[in-house]
Amino acid sequence: MNTIQTVQTSKSYKCWLQYDAVVNQQRKEEYSVIAKVISKQLDSPAADAAAAELKMAFESMLGIHAEVKHEKPEAGVLLSIAESADYLTDEGFEIKKEGSRLLITGKTDKGLLYGAFHLLRGMQTGEPLAKIEGIQNPANPLRMINQWDNIDGSIERGYAGASIFYENNEFTKDLGRIQDYARLLASVGINGVSINNVNVHKIETDMITSVLLPDVAKIADIFRQYGIRLFLSVNFASPIELGDLKTADPLEESVRQWWKNKAEEVYTYIPDFGGFVVKADSEHRPGPFTYGRNHADGSNMLAEALAPFGGLVIWRCFVYNCMQDWRDRKTDRARAAYDHFEPLDGQFLDNVILQIKNGPMDFQVREPVTPLFGAMPKTNQVIEFQVTQEYTGQQRHLCYLVPQWKEVLNFDTYAKGKGSAVKQVVDGSMYEYKHSGIAAVSNIGNDENWTGHTLAQANFYGYGRLTWNPELSSEDIAKEWISQTFGPDESMQQVISHMLHDSWPIYESYTAPLGVGWMVNPEHHYGPNVDGYEYSVWGTYHFADCNGIGVDRTIESGTGYTSQYFKENERYYNSIDTCPDNLLLFFHHVPYTHVLKSGETVIQHIYNTHFEGADEAANLVETWCSLKDRIDPQRFDAVLKRLEEQAEHSKQWRDRINTYFYRKSGIEDKQKRTIY
Amino acid sequence: MNTIQTVQTSKSYKCWLQYDAVVNQQRKEEYSVIAKVISKQLDSPAADAAAAELKMAFESMLGIHAEVKHEKPEAGVLLSIAESADYLTDEGFEIKKEGSRLLITGKTDKGLLYGAFHLLRGMQTGEPLAKIEGIQNPANPLRMINQWDNIDGSIERGYAGASIFYENNEFTKDLGRIQDYARLLASVGINGVSINNVNVHKIETDMITSVLLPDVAKIADIFRQYGIRLFLSVNFASPIELGDLKTADPLEESVRQWWKNKAEEVYTYIPDFGGFVVKADSEHRPGPFTYGRNHADGSNMLAEALAPFGGLVIWRCFVYNCMQDWRDRKTDRARAAYDHFEPLDGQFLDNVILQIKNGPMDFQVREPVTPLFGAMPKTNQVIEFQVTQEYTGQQRHLCYLVPQWKEVLNFDTYAKGKGSAVKQVVDGSMYEYKHSGIAAVSNIGNDENWTGHTLAQANFYGYGRLTWNPELSSEDIAKEWISQTFGPDESMQQVISHMLHDSWPIYESYTAPLGVGWMVNPEHHYGPNVDGYEYSVWGTYHFADCNGIGVDRTIESGTGYTSQYFKENERYYNSIDTCPDNLLLFFHHVPYTHVLKSGETVIQHIYNTHFEGADEAANLVETWCSLKDRIDPQRFDAVLKRLEEQAEHSKQWRDRINTYFYRKSGIEDKQKRTIY
Repeated sequence: MNTIQTVQTSKSYKCWLQYDAVVNQQRKEEYSVIAKVISKQLDSPAADAAAAELKMAFESMLGIHAEVKHEKPEAGVLLSIAESADYLTDEGFEIKKEGSRLLITGKTDKGLLYGAFHLLRGMQTGEPLAKIEGIQNPANPLRMINQWDNIDGSIERGYAGASIFYENNEFTKDLGRIQDYARLLASVGINGVSINNVNVHKIETDMITSVLLPDVAKIADIFRQYGIRLFLSVNFASPIELGDLKTADPLEESVRQWWKNKAEEVYTYIPDFGGFVVKADSEHRPGPFTYGRNHADGSNMLAEALAPFGGLVIWRCFVYNCMQDWRDRKTDRARAAYDHFEPLDGQFLDNVILQIKNGPMDFQVREPVTPLFGAMPKTNQVIEFQVTQEYTGQQRHLCYLVPQWKEVLNFDTYAKGKGSAVKQVVDGSMYEYKHSGIAAVSNIGNDENWTGHTLAQANFYGYGRLTWNPELSSEDIAKEWISQTFGPDESMQQVISHMLHDSWPIYESYTAPLGVGWMVNPEHHYGPNVDGYEYSVWGTYHFADCNGIGVDRTIESGTGYTSQYFKENERYYNSIDTCPDNLLLFFHHVPYTHVLKSGETVIQHIYNTHFEGADEAANLVETWCSLKDRIDPQRFDAVLKRLEEQAEHSKQWRDRINTYFYRKSGIEDKQKRTIY
Repeated sequence: MNTIQTVQTSKSYKCWLQYDAVVNQQRKEEYSVIAKVISKQLDSPAADAAAAELKMAFESMLGIHAEVKHEKPEAGVLLSIAESADYLTDEGFEIKKEGSRLLITGKTDKGLLYGAFHLLRGMQTGEPLAKIEGIQNPANPLRMINQWDNIDGSIERGYAGASIFYENNEFTKDLGRIQDYARLLASVGINGVSINNVNVHKIETDMITSVLLPDVAKIADIFRQYGIRLFLSVNFASPIELGDLKTADPLEESVRQWWKNKAEEVYTYIPDFGGFVVKADSEHRPGPFTYGRNHADGSNMLAEALAPFGGLVIWRCFVYNCMQDWRDRKTDRARAAYDHFEPLDGQFLDNVILQIKNGPMDFQVREPVTPLFGAMPKTNQVIEFQVTQEYTGQQRHLCYLVPQWKEVLNFDTYAKGKGSAVKQVVDGSMYEYKHSGIAAVSNIGNDENWTGHTLAQANFYGYGRLTWNPELSSEDIAKEWISQTFGPDESMQQVISHMLHDSWPIYESYTAPLGVGWMVNPEHHYGPNVDGYEYSVWGTYHFADCNGIGVDRTIESGTGYTSQYFKENERYYNSIDTCPDNLLLFFHHVPYTHVLKSGETVIQHIYNTHFEGADEAANLVETWCSLKDRIDPQRFDAVLKRLEEQAEHSKQWRDRINTYFYRKSGIEDKQKRTIY
């Protein structure tokens, strides 16, 4: 029987698993009837974890010390397996009330776990049991988190402290925190985690050898209890790096055999190992290009090695020329993923999945949806989001990303005519992929509150919930999260929900007007720098001059990127008449005096949104202050501090961007506000 | 008797102390007469070193194994002390031929050393002994090199490998290389060296404690042989950092006593210790401001502690607001040193010297001379140059800096009317300072050739020679250096001399038009980035907009910086009519269409100089190639590689700067060359 030991017990730490005492007397009575016994009919890691979670929660919420037993109770929660329930997928569950019993039924023990967390979510949000009843199956088969953690304890693009997995080039001894992380992940439906950075450095290359596999296996044991399969990022050049071979050529028999042996070895340590995540031929990482091979050759070699054990190859499509000459205006980084991968459709093995970033560039505040979705009917795809706020304020600015992800998932690719949303691609329904789903880069670290900004917990929560059910509205997700995290005060909930929903538009308004992107400081990507990436090797340009700004990606006069979309979208973006304002500068180069659909000129839009955005950031502080006595001091103060920093920093953004464009265009602000 | 063991013997390593065999038969015979015996009448470290250097050189140049003895020879070199020679300063020397004897006379043993190196320089450049004869006294009392080496082996602003002093947080074991460094320094007249970075980090703070003083003393022993006093950079907060006191307040008695004890301790290890170099209240370093005290309070406290032992405090004036808001256009960093220090004139103790950078900003390619020179009649001053090429191409671009330093030293301050050159301030003659001279940041590291770019050895050489005698012409210095370094081929010498003398103008032309400065990448300062420092905290702006560029530092409409100069220079710079083109944008904000004294507009000047500069950088490659068979392959190839890199990189400079200004101004190049 699994015993949960949470390592810290502050409200910051507990996130949405607060399990506060139920104050509504009617609910308390209703819940108490089923809380005295937890019956589970099988012993398995996940069933044990489900029972343990329920037991702990009942104690905390209701003051009831539930008995856990195998026998069917008169009253209580009954966890049972129904292998033949054809209305359930492997991870689905049914919750059903039968008299004084609440039945949680799963086809496997994973379903029981998700059912238990679903029950607890309902109880925490104060639902009557009748509303908690029902059948749920996850929409996406793969619901994954990528940790970009390095074994030295640092996290690439991490903004919430150091790694919870590693410190000082070793695995952590603090397994309790990893268990708590697994609980949080499982509670929102995540079923896969890769635990090391996709940029696999020297020491991490050893994670697939006997040097580190015993440590990896311990982590896998924890995640297994919570229905989560462990994946590893691997170095494509491992056969060389580990000193065994002189080549990593994927068509070389010795290399293929090396990986087969390697897979076998890994599975002796971790029998349900998920597979490999691979960043190859991308930003100086090794890959098949070195040997004149393509991505199908590279990924299929790994897939062949993993197939006998049920493992997957998750192959990232973030492949582009990162040594571009800024003087070369013909090469367009936005085209790269499609140009590299679309021609290979049909060449990938069944257990290869291409992992594709939501946009063609790199997790900008605003960019269009990548045209690869829907364009490869014969190739498994997962979408990659970024929960960690690399370009979206680094958890020092508030930026609730669920609305962005919803927009992407609902984007109509027109792959099979109208109504061909991205979510239908990635849930596997559009083309009946063998494997598919959603992945994202994690935003957690060892800060006490996990996410640096306490309100960034909402992104972690919301991401998970969306992977389970993309139909959930952004508002419902926010409400669920706030209610569990901060309690039942409805007016407080509304205030926070508004803050969350205003936050992405606010951040966009003072950082990334009209889809322009990349106006950030190089390398760390925090703070304004309009030309920060303008003359760089990264293929990231806005071409602002004294007359206008934007990247011409049209077919007639530009890079032709628009032609990668299905016809409807190609026409939509290619024409300046239909292209939406918020992506105008992504697709078109226009004069500052160009009049937007909003009726404003481009330059006046830039000024307006920056002044307004900074004002709105300041308002967030005030709004939050209205909650002073309704949030515990620790979390209230922590959030306040971040919001104050945001308000100040948003003025930097406002002034730098406005000054840049004023100096460049020479056009005065119509409202004569201060520009430097 | 000192025995010299050079650790490497390549031509790259030997720099200008090649001691090649003399090929001119007439010279060889003349030299040989005096080379058979080296007589020295006293035993002292410096006299021993002089004799040893001569012995080694004679062997190498003439194949003669000289006998070293105390007795006066019939024929030979006679090193002797003449304490009462009133035509010599303590470090001066006389060389005089008497029959078959060559007399080198010094007032102290240091004079003998400089005399010996002077003789060898003359022999290496093929002078007849009659031309080597004469009396020489150094113009500047203090002739100093600052190493910005860190104990981890890195060098702040080092471009020639790692430190020769430290590795892995310890002092090096390779004392042979340090001895060779001392030989090179002494051969050009350097008499002081500070061996650690002015930014004194944690471990280095211990250099003034028993933890590291034994190691420091070993280094001091080596330098002592070559007439060089060792200095240490100290952390103003040492009393706190070392755990002894809770304050570093310079007016606090306990702090004053602490430093007195500390000085006493240091002198027990190093009896001729030079003193402390201090960067205080500068770029986040601790200093007297913390306690509401001024720089006189801070430096006098240290001076009082060092005075009993003859030690100096070298107090840097690089003090400015490094947390400036770019939106604040009133604060002018150029004013800072004068504003901070000039009012304190007369308040500093006799053994305090203010070390003042040549310009008011920070070693830019082009900036005016700082107005502090001549403005503090009662305060010892040394000028600080930068031999290491931080902003001048980082020893990957060729940039011979002697002409720049000559310009600065010859700059007329008008402090005492016309003819009040900076060199008269720093040599102590203008105001009869107790201590004064020249300091510079070193450009050497553990690269085999010491300076990364072989031709950058010329800056090291030329810097030393100028400190000894600022009247030497840049051309003569170059000729001396080339001849000793590469041999007697006169047409080769002329080619290299032209390359050297073209190099600063070339570098300026493609990097820093019209005195604008700071258009470099932040932090590492390499490569073009026009707005790299434009919105930063460093007080470094050019205010380019679509109409014009430059910083208004005039009295009427600008920051009033020009008023810090004596009247003649104030008028000269303050008026746009007299301000020279090459500093125009430093002092004035002008439209791109402003017509320069050259007859070109500002914008066309920018385009022209950038196209021409890149062309000239390419020509340097060709010119160098013309020397292919006249330079040894190791050095030829090494220089060629650097020049090729420069040619390529100069195109980046050309294109980025031209593109920036074309995009910003919208004004076409009259010659229609390619701008992106």
